[in-house]
Amino acid sequence: MKVSVRVIPPDKELELKAGDNLRSALIEAGIPLDSPCGGQGTCLKCKVQLAGVSRKYTDLEQEKLSREELDGGWHLACQVTVEEPGEVRLPEVEVSRAKASFGLLGEEISLRPNVRRFPFELSQPSIKDQRADWNRLAEYLERSTKRPVSTALSLLRELSFRLREGNFSGQAVVVGNEVVALDPPGSGSDVLGVAIDIGTTTLAAALVDLDTGKVVSLDAELNPQITFGADVVSRIMYAQDGAAKREKLQKELVKGLNQLLLRLCRSARRERERIFEATVVGNTTMLHTLLGLEARYIALAPYVGGLNRPFDLPATELGLQIHPRGKVHIMPSIASFVGADTVAVILATRMHQSRVPMLAIDIGTNGEVMLATRKEVLTASTAAGPAFEGGRIKYGMRAVKGAISSFQATPVMNYSVIGGGAPRGICGSGLIDLAAELYRTGVLDYKGRILRPAEISTRWAEELAPKVRIRKEAREFVIFRDEDREVTLTQQDIRELQLAKGAIRAGVELLMKEAGISADDIQEVLLAGVFGNYINRERAVVLGLIPVFPLEKIHFIGNGAMDGALLALLDMEERSQAEKIVARVHHIELSGRPDFEETFLRCLSFDNK
Amino acid sequence: MKVSVRVIPPDKELELKAGDNLRSALIEAGIPLDSPCGGQGTCLKCKVQLAGVSRKYTDLEQEKLSREELDGGWHLACQVTVEEPGEVRLPEVEVSRAKASFGLLGEEISLRPNVRRFPFELSQPSIKDQRADWNRLAEYLERSTKRPVSTALSLLRELSFRLREGNFSGQAVVVGNEVVALDPPGSGSDVLGVAIDIGTTTLAAALVDLDTGKVVSLDAELNPQITFGADVVSRIMYAQDGAAKREKLQKELVKGLNQLLLRLCRSARRERERIFEATVVGNTTMLHTLLGLEARYIALAPYVGGLNRPFDLPATELGLQIHPRGKVHIMPSIASFVGADTVAVILATRMHQSRVPMLAIDIGTNGEVMLATRKEVLTASTAAGPAFEGGRIKYGMRAVKGAISSFQATPVMNYSVIGGGAPRGICGSGLIDLAAELYRTGVLDYKGRILRPAEISTRWAEELAPKVRIRKEAREFVIFRDEDREVTLTQQDIRELQLAKGAIRAGVELLMKEAGISADDIQEVLLAGVFGNYINRERAVVLGLIPVFPLEKIHFIGNGAMDGALLALLDMEERSQAEKIVARVHHIELSGRPDFEETFLRCLSFDNK
Repeated sequence: MKVSVRVIPPDKELELKAGDNLRSALIEAGIPLDSPCGGQGTCLKCKVQLAGVSRKYTDLEQEKLSREELDGGWHLACQVTVEEPGEVRLPEVEVSRAKASFGLLGEEISLRPNVRRFPFELSQPSIKDQRADWNRLAEYLERSTKRPVSTALSLLRELSFRLREGNFSGQAVVVGNEVVALDPPGSGSDVLGVAIDIGTTTLAAALVDLDTGKVVSLDAELNPQITFGADVVSRIMYAQDGAAKREKLQKELVKGLNQLLLRLCRSARRERERIFEATVVGNTTMLHTLLGLEARYIALAPYVGGLNRPFDLPATELGLQIHPRGKVHIMPSIASFVGADTVAVILATRMHQSRVPMLAIDIGTNGEVMLATRKEVLTASTAAGPAFEGGRIKYGMRAVKGAISSFQATPVMNYSVIGGGAPRGICGSGLIDLAAELYRTGVLDYKGRILRPAEISTRWAEELAPKVRIRKEAREFVIFRDEDREVTLTQQDIRELQLAKGAIRAGVELLMKEAGISADDIQEVLLAGVFGNYINRERAVVLGLIPVFPLEKIHFIGNGAMDGALLALLDMEERSQAEKIVARVHHIELSGRPDFEETFLRCLSFDNK
Repeated sequence: MKVSVRVIPPDKELELKAGDNLRSALIEAGIPLDSPCGGQGTCLKCKVQLAGVSRKYTDLEQEKLSREELDGGWHLACQVTVEEPGEVRLPEVEVSRAKASFGLLGEEISLRPNVRRFPFELSQPSIKDQRADWNRLAEYLERSTKRPVSTALSLLRELSFRLREGNFSGQAVVVGNEVVALDPPGSGSDVLGVAIDIGTTTLAAALVDLDTGKVVSLDAELNPQITFGADVVSRIMYAQDGAAKREKLQKELVKGLNQLLLRLCRSARRERERIFEATVVGNTTMLHTLLGLEARYIALAPYVGGLNRPFDLPATELGLQIHPRGKVHIMPSIASFVGADTVAVILATRMHQSRVPMLAIDIGTNGEVMLATRKEVLTASTAAGPAFEGGRIKYGMRAVKGAISSFQATPVMNYSVIGGGAPRGICGSGLIDLAAELYRTGVLDYKGRILRPAEISTRWAEELAPKVRIRKEAREFVIFRDEDREVTLTQQDIRELQLAKGAIRAGVELLMKEAGISADDIQEVLLAGVFGNYINRERAVVLGLIPVFPLEKIHFIGNGAMDGALLALLDMEERSQAEKIVARVHHIELSGRPDFEETFLRCLSFDNK
């Protein structure tokens, strides 16, 4: 059944299918709706105001939306099902200036992109001026750009026609030194770029209007490679079985990126063919799989990959569907397990220019730790594993509908479930909350052991002890149970969490040791990663994921890697900065240190000191 | 029937097919045999000594070979048919140093090619040195070359394997700044380049060993585009009927080039995949058809082509079968009718550096005239038309078997036929000889009119007058006649020749006028073009093709355009010189001058003054 919904702006009557998710339906209908979390209910970007209907709020909406928003009829479109006719008002569509995405810094970003547009008005050929078409255009542009220009054969083949079509006037789109497109004079065509962050789990991209520097749409998508393995090592294992599998990984990834680009362009009503450059960050393995490079040596000691330098190539060589002469700029990496995403985080946070010690942690399947001293930036990569993303956890899941995303043990045990309803599992932030709360309330000891009910001696024993279940040697904490199913946290889950947090914390400790800096010296702590935005700072401290810092020093910066990719798209100077970062970063290979083992073991426990 | 022939060197018994042409059979069998004219009997390069058999000499051999050569049993392989077993001795195979092909200058050519080879021995990866493979190689090469290096995705994809295969040692082949190939350490593989001259009628190419600078084989081939029109304008007309026809012209040309490259490599026993760069010259239209560019505006006033700048591109974009990452360098042109071939002639002759006035004429379907003054080089293109190549001449033909290639009217009428036997037609040099001799002996008047027998008043009238035939208004001079066929020179043929020589001569006159230089000021006259080598200097003067110069000032330089392409292949400094030539040449568009018509008309006549 179709339902008629008026959408404002653009004040348009849309026929939507009853039962569809409102966010998906709007995007499908071409309405620009930022939703970088891909509809998982975590980014809170897809707010819409429903008028003419009153709709019940989901638990997630009640938790995430402010009192004012709730009173004003604002919903998260991803939480709404299309049911009856009505009116949907979108927030003021003031498309965010690119800098708006740089939450941390708030500084003005210079617009000096690699993609530039030059209007031209050439003199007409005559017997007195017989310069060939390309000579005529190139000489004009070289006067404008003060640099030599080149072009591709495919453009030369259409040049004579295009110039005469526009009576020797028009606009040239130049990427680097290469003229890649000619637009008719006075054409209103836009010039777009895209910043891409290839995560092991999530692909994120931001479409940018390079004339204004504004981000016109943002979106995310599951990395389709996930079917070949959840973490980088399993992907490397898959790909090392021959060129065909390597190619398969490459093609699947690009297919996912192309879908993402298509959605970005649809939602912003732009054409993919007007994207002239993509800047790409990601961990080193993801960049290798994007390029189809041999990645096996990343995973074998001494962990040496094929490429860490920045790399520019034509988009067609990857199959990326942007302008046929569009380019891809792969940002530089630091080491096999400290990729371009880390470089991008450092770039976006300006850590490399910090005059005070700063710590940043990018939490993901691999946790990257960055420590800025006054002199340099130290980095380390830690094999956190997939626990924070739900991997190897009995009821683990990503932060989607049904996941327990936060947990309180007192005054009465309570938790919130994404999308409301009965819980189906536990996501990363829920896992941290659970462990931190159970440790605080004495259900876990500092070694991470689930105590027998009789051993629990705190004042919350009466409520919580009954939830501990022991069958043979297996202990678990039962969070939810009805006739159909249950959700529990097992002793093994806690061990996995300890490995993850221990790895990250050991990285933090060892970098501080290397730099001769104590936690007290550190002036600011940044937590990055899409996941980073949703964890509870206090509990991360309780758990010992990070040292004991005053909470006001801890800041979430969201997807800092994406911010770095955007900077590199908008300003060539930022690309030079990225190369300077790589040259100046001091990467510490933790596995090569004699004190790693001992530090790691010490960091497994929950007593944060 | 097979015939056993011993070939020395390499002292090898070959089974050749009786009845085959010896030159073709040897090349087919992989014996290096230079024959840039493609077996037309004109280049005199395919000399072989036949031992153990005595074979009759053809007229062409008797004419072209020296007394010593004839006495020593030397033949032109292209004139010999395989008949009986025997021994074929090749000349001392001292493969010519590249400079040997620069007959005019005899100067030493510097070997500073764009294709270079760098041996490398990298440090092994270790936990202390985790640089990625490409970083490791690139940093090493950047230290060696003092320049940034880049590479292509396809090489990156095999890099990790190749480096480990060679235990991190090997040799890198670098074209410009791009690493295009990695050879194993100590590999004896050669590094080749090829210089290509694309003529309207003939493709010529020279294969060069870039380690030594030596030309290892030279060959020529008909331009397969000839089926689409004999001259540039007819090719342009063909191609302007749409992209499919433009592509057809492009593909046919590249097919011909690939065949030529295959033959070059076979005869030198080299691999096409070891050719890393091609330098290409040709007239502007040929270069447009090679690239598949729109050429129609070349032929329409104001005669503006698509591209005159130098252009570098990957060989794969053209379909040229060299190394898959090999490059093509298209040399710059000056104007739509003064192409890269002319630039190459100027480069090879050093006219642009001449301190005395010099004149050069490149004779072909388009005749290019170059005049070096002390200050600059003036150029003009003249629409000579195809007469010198046999086009629009009743019995016209190219210089192949059966063509009358030279002619004497006195003391008794005599002519030589390429390959011997009865004549089938007249080639360019024969045409010039015929017209010059008939004018000298009074059969033609200075206006080019064939006189009636009764009007011929010279002492040769008795012998020559009977050969003039007049039917209605059509007059012709009968050179040969038997029961089967005849060869004649018609009044119309003479008109065509007059147009051709008039066009070239008018170009010479107008350039001298423009420069304020008289024929007496000119210290050297160079005749270029494959054809240029075989015309009789004296008769060219008689005919008025060139002004009256002392014969010792007139020199043939053969295919000067090829020499220029070779220079650009061997020495990057020569490419800069080529660009300087283009910037400094002053091209005179003859059709734009008010005095063109009058000069041209005056130059039609045979009285040379």
